[in-house]
Amino acid sequence: MTEWQTLKLHEEAHVLTITLNRPQQKNAMNQLMVNELRQLFENLAERRDLFAVILRGQDGNFCAGGDIKDMSYDPETGSELQQKNLVKANRNFGYLLQAVNNCRLTVIGILEGAVLGGGFGLCCVTDLALAHEQAQFGLPETSLGLIPAQIAPFVTLRIGLTQTRRLALLGMRFSGQEAKELGLVHGTFTDEKDLDVQLEAILKKLRKCAPGANAVTKKLLLQVVNPDLDAVLDQAAEEFAQALMGPEGVEGRRAFMEKRSADWMKL
Amino acid sequence: MTEWQTLKLHEEAHVLTITLNRPQQKNAMNQLMVNELRQLFENLAERRDLFAVILRGQDGNFCAGGDIKDMSYDPETGSELQQKNLVKANRNFGYLLQAVNNCRLTVIGILEGAVLGGGFGLCCVTDLALAHEQAQFGLPETSLGLIPAQIAPFVTLRIGLTQTRRLALLGMRFSGQEAKELGLVHGTFTDEKDLDVQLEAILKKLRKCAPGANAVTKKLLLQVVNPDLDAVLDQAAEEFAQALMGPEGVEGRRAFMEKRSADWMKL
Amino acid sequence: MTEWQTLKLHEEAHVLTITLNRPQQKNAMNQLMVNELRQLFENLAERRDLFAVILRGQDGNFCAGGDIKDMSYDPETGSELQQKNLVKANRNFGYLLQAVNNCRLTVIGILEGAVLGGGFGLCCVTDLALAHEQAQFGLPETSLGLIPAQIAPFVTLRIGLTQTRRLALLGMRFSGQEAKELGLVHGTFTDEKDLDVQLEAILKKLRKCAPGANAVTKKLLLQVVNPDLDAVLDQAAEEFAQALMGPEGVEGRRAFMEKRSADWMKL
Repeated sequence: MTEWQTLKLHEEAHVLTITLNRPQQKNAMNQLMVNELRQLFENLAERRDLFAVILRGQDGNFCAGGDIKDMSYDPETGSELQQKNLVKANRNFGYLLQAVNNCRLTVIGILEGAVLGGGFGLCCVTDLALAHEQAQFGLPETSLGLIPAQIAPFVTLRIGLTQTRRLALLGMRFSGQEAKELGLVHGTFTDEKDLDVQLEAILKKLRKCAPGANAVTKKLLLQVVNPDLDAVLDQAAEEFAQALMGPEGVEGRRAFMEKRSADWMKL
Repeated sequence: MTEWQTLKLHEEAHVLTITLNRPQQKNAMNQLMVNELRQLFENLAERRDLFAVILRGQDGNFCAGGDIKDMSYDPETGSELQQKNLVKANRNFGYLLQAVNNCRLTVIGILEGAVLGGGFGLCCVTDLALAHEQAQFGLPETSLGLIPAQIAPFVTLRIGLTQTRRLALLGMRFSGQEAKELGLVHGTFTDEKDLDVQLEAILKKLRKCAPGANAVTKKLLLQVVNPDLDAVLDQAAEEFAQALMGPEGVEGRRAFMEKRSADWMKL
Repeated sequence: MTEWQTLKLHEEAHVLTITLNRPQQKNAMNQLMVNELRQLFENLAERRDLFAVILRGQDGNFCAGGDIKDMSYDPETGSELQQKNLVKANRNFGYLLQAVNNCRLTVIGILEGAVLGGGFGLCCVTDLALAHEQAQFGLPETSLGLIPAQIAPFVTLRIGLTQTRRLALLGMRFSGQEAKELGLVHGTFTDEKDLDVQLEAILKKLRKCAPGANAVTKKLLLQVVNPDLDAVLDQAAEEFAQALMGPEGVEGRRAFMEKRSADWMKL
């Protein structure tokens, strides 16, 4: 049996709840968490005894994005191997998003607290998403000189080009309520009790639907609108590494550390 | 001149009204109705003297979906021919949806009462749709162990992946008012008088637009977003037959007949 | 240095404002304006010192569409060369829309007064659009026997097929407020003062985002949903010329000049 270091699992009445479990880091995803989540979702294909997967975060935050520690790079000492690893790690997160999106089970996301960057990306591949009214959604990448490389394609498929270009290019931050208005999530909740009532109603509906038929239906829906993203995501990973290693990435991280505004026009 | 057995036609002032006419069955579509509708829409390509087609149902229901009688199959006695016919009949309904979607005339749908399954599909291929506030929309397929095979792709093209995955995977039922909020229909009406006023305003606008230019414009719009659905719909018809003949389909029909909940996890 | 005959340019604090400047014609685009705009946007690729481009119109109108003078054609005297020029001019406008859509800078549109036809098209390729509540949006093409050839594909990519088929086939006119509800624009403003406050907030957000990272992000978003439109727009230009030269186009222009309703069914 697998021991998970970054996840907590709970199974009850044919529903598996996965909890991202690095609460000290607002459940920011390090490489280990990405690998564990990916392995877990890829194995779920075999689980014919489940109706649904619930994905949430420990202690009031969903997920604050990628772990900033994995994104360090010093242009003066950085090696070619380090560059390759940046590309690989970024693409690996995209593989996780693809695995969740294509999971044959119905995936329900509970979005609270921080829903940033990669956490925002995970929200975009759920079948049903409920956000706390005051959850904090955001795509902060370009304000750090980085790009939402693996994430932006799934945001675009989630809410369309028109809203995505605004959100991504202005580095917008917004609430769960606005996430509902933008169509990122399907509903909002005010507290844990309200959430429980809504989840119960959703699971009641879901249990009436044949799980095999649901899996085939989900595959069918994805076929209609999902372009083949592999080439786009491969290239995006290269561009992510370029941005991180380039002058904007360096200035972005420096300004962040020094708690000052980045000065893009001096570059 | 064609005699229609399942449809009523009325033509006035360059507008053709088609009424689905099996009111005892809430205008559920049997094979004959699908064939008649398909023939009718394919012939409309020649009708340069019309501004619009109105599609509605007799006696307060739009259409309750496919006729359950066409979906019987006994796994113990079912023949290979019967299997082939299930695939063929399912795909035939998809050809009808494609014909309505691609009709060179502007198609206006009036959605009242039951708008279920295949009726829901027809709603998704109209150019302009008005729903009674209390119309009952739903995709009940997976709750019967079946899949919305020919329908789901058109729902996805109508309202996008994000809302479709929720509606289809939870077997949602909802009102005309919610259909408006989801973007399935363009407006709602409260009664026949309100509908008449709205229809008159719409037809007034439509008569100002050159019908030939409108036909070319419609073709252009469809080119931009419509993927080639033939391969998807062909495969979906096979999967529909598999679902109907498989254990979930059998249990789903049995539970429906016995007025009990299906027990999917025992299968 | 380029002298612009149809445009006014103003640059301040790394933001370039482009003003369409044919106010007597409600900034309707003649061939010269299309050429100047296209040249300007194609050159912007080199401008690494800008955060944003603001696109607006002089004296309270955004843009009333194409110049009707460029669309004259007498079927009895029209030459083959004239036909070819109609195709070319129409397609040229599509190249402009593609250049604005693909501009590496963030493009902000201010939509006031007339936002018709080609002006409507320009709105659809901005990254962020603010409309005056009472701006007048419309796609009047088919009411003139013409088609929104280069425009309709971008409307479809902007707000989806479902709303576009209604707007385009009914030749709808609607306010800035409704444009917001349809998702054509991201916000509305009530007067110039309100606009200034909103613009300032937007530019403040934008200045925090690295311009190079934003350019790469924008390219990434467009890759996901933008089909290759060249073939569609090429064909649409041919169909535009056919419509303009055909009986509906002739009747449409005649009715417009004679201030009467066109009689499409007599053709």
